[in-house]
Amino acid sequence: MTAREAVETLLAGRPRTPAVPFAESYAPANIALAKYWGKRDEALNLPTASSLSISLGDLGSHVRLAPAPEGAPTDTITLNGAPLSPDTPFARRASAYFDLFRPSPSFRFDLQARNTIPTAAGFASSASGFAALAKAADALFGWNLPRQSLSILARLGSGSAARSLADGFVEWHAGERSDGMDSFATPLPDRWPALRIGACVLSSAEKPVGSRDGMRRSVRTCPFYSSWPDLVARDIATLHDAIAARDIALLGATAESNCLAMHSLMMATRPPILYFLPETLTAIRAVWAARADGLPVWFTMDAGPNLKLLFESSSESSVRALFPTATIVSPFA
Amino acid sequence: MTAREAVETLLAGRPRTPAVPFAESYAPANIALAKYWGKRDEALNLPTASSLSISLGDLGSHVRLAPAPEGAPTDTITLNGAPLSPDTPFARRASAYFDLFRPSPSFRFDLQARNTIPTAAGFASSASGFAALAKAADALFGWNLPRQSLSILARLGSGSAARSLADGFVEWHAGERSDGMDSFATPLPDRWPALRIGACVLSSAEKPVGSRDGMRRSVRTCPFYSSWPDLVARDIATLHDAIAARDIALLGATAESNCLAMHSLMMATRPPILYFLPETLTAIRAVWAARADGLPVWFTMDAGPNLKLLFESSSESSVRALFPTATIVSPFA
Repeated sequence: MTAREAVETLLAGRPRTPAVPFAESYAPANIALAKYWGKRDEALNLPTASSLSISLGDLGSHVRLAPAPEGAPTDTITLNGAPLSPDTPFARRASAYFDLFRPSPSFRFDLQARNTIPTAAGFASSASGFAALAKAADALFGWNLPRQSLSILARLGSGSAARSLADGFVEWHAGERSDGMDSFATPLPDRWPALRIGACVLSSAEKPVGSRDGMRRSVRTCPFYSSWPDLVARDIATLHDAIAARDIALLGATAESNCLAMHSLMMATRPPILYFLPETLTAIRAVWAARADGLPVWFTMDAGPNLKLLFESSSESSVRALFPTATIVSPFA
Repeated sequence: MTAREAVETLLAGRPRTPAVPFAESYAPANIALAKYWGKRDEALNLPTASSLSISLGDLGSHVRLAPAPEGAPTDTITLNGAPLSPDTPFARRASAYFDLFRPSPSFRFDLQARNTIPTAAGFASSASGFAALAKAADALFGWNLPRQSLSILARLGSGSAARSLADGFVEWHAGERSDGMDSFATPLPDRWPALRIGACVLSSAEKPVGSRDGMRRSVRTCPFYSSWPDLVARDIATLHDAIAARDIALLGATAESNCLAMHSLMMATRPPILYFLPETLTAIRAVWAARADGLPVWFTMDAGPNLKLLFESSSESSVRALFPTATIVSPFA
């Protein structure tokens, strides 16, 4: 099934032309505690395994979506106040996404997107961006889609965007269907006000390998890949226990192990994918040394060299002293 | 089966008291191109997978073994000219090994060991040490064991010592028997005079986790461990092709991937085993950058932070320029 066909299924019986002059929406960024690494269907962004994330509150993406003036030759896209040329990667990706529900081939969109994620914080913005876009399209056309369908619609733009439709803890169910209609995210009811996330930016250099290519290479060549889905399933079960008990040690240890297992998969991929930089190892060892000294802090890492710290508010001043430049987020504030 | 019982099997019908006043022998160190990581039997040092190594010529261990003077309260052990106290790790390990074939409980050995491996070269000396010891015991007692039995005897001292009984390329067959009598190493006939190995010492700090404990932890907790034996078997098959064709690119790429897969296993072990230091990543990236620039050089790493480079004599001056402090070995010189 193509992404376009999946959207047709989602939108069956819904309006196909704009219902209002414009629509605005917001979605938070998220970081995975049990990671997404590998697709079972690349066209539909269907994952080989479920994943579990925490949304980042008011760090995310605001978008305003409207029809472009009639006769516009291309979609017009503005990011953080700056108009983007149609051949930039972001503009091409947005336009390809619009193709999934463009009312007619000549219809053009006007998109204004603004990220509240500090560029230097090292959080990905594609998840919040496509989640906000899915919500804005829903409002613009008056689809009134249920949240599960919105999660699917966001997933078709970027896999992890499926998880950015809700605040707090969110689980993206891998699903089993080939059309992906059972692969959406649902929020967990638990709130954990003391939870903190610290983003340590160690390098802003571009990734040597993008996530999409990296995932494909791991699925195809990593000799350990077949063990990954079961591992993630076990980690998600443990994370549920940790969240229910507000057990930061269990949450942190599970997220840290899961992230190291993902980076192990990457490193055993042929040719290898190694996101670690020397600074990454220095920071990892600093976290381990602090923990050995009694500070309850753990880390996770995405497909890049930067660490995200996991801790509770009672440790905030110590963590701040250890990593003075970290951006600290309160996901439940 | 205990190690002592295995030795009884090996020595059945052989003399049990010294035949000569003393015996001297030598064995080379080795580095694995397809790694040994994990035991199926800890008492007998039986591996879960085969492995393939290259011996390091005249970098190794010389030993002289003799009965200690009658009445000596302990084995007397000298390492590189310095007498060792019986409670040092090396002396304890040697005495435990002597227990496997001590003629009587009160019999004491005198061992003088000398390593020609520069201490700063970062090569392990336990493989060459136990291989030399097995050969010296064979000569001292006049056992006249066949080479396969000598390899088994060395293995009972240190797993990788099984591979240090021969020069050149050596394959240690994992075997299937519970008594380990089919788990020994055999040399490959191929010679590759242009092959070079460069040892880059990045840190001489003590390992955070010893190999024995690390292997045990990986076998028990690494979620990817079950894929390791098949992976090594495939890599060994590829290494045979590379050696037959004197194909340094295939040899290097296979050894490098295999080593990264082993370090992946370690990193996905719970709790993780991470031998990489910041300097390790800097050196890895230097190798990759040099290779991208056309220099045919690859690396392998053992259970530690140091790199061993694999290249041919035609690249020696370039490698020396890149890693001026590396110790360069010619295994077939």
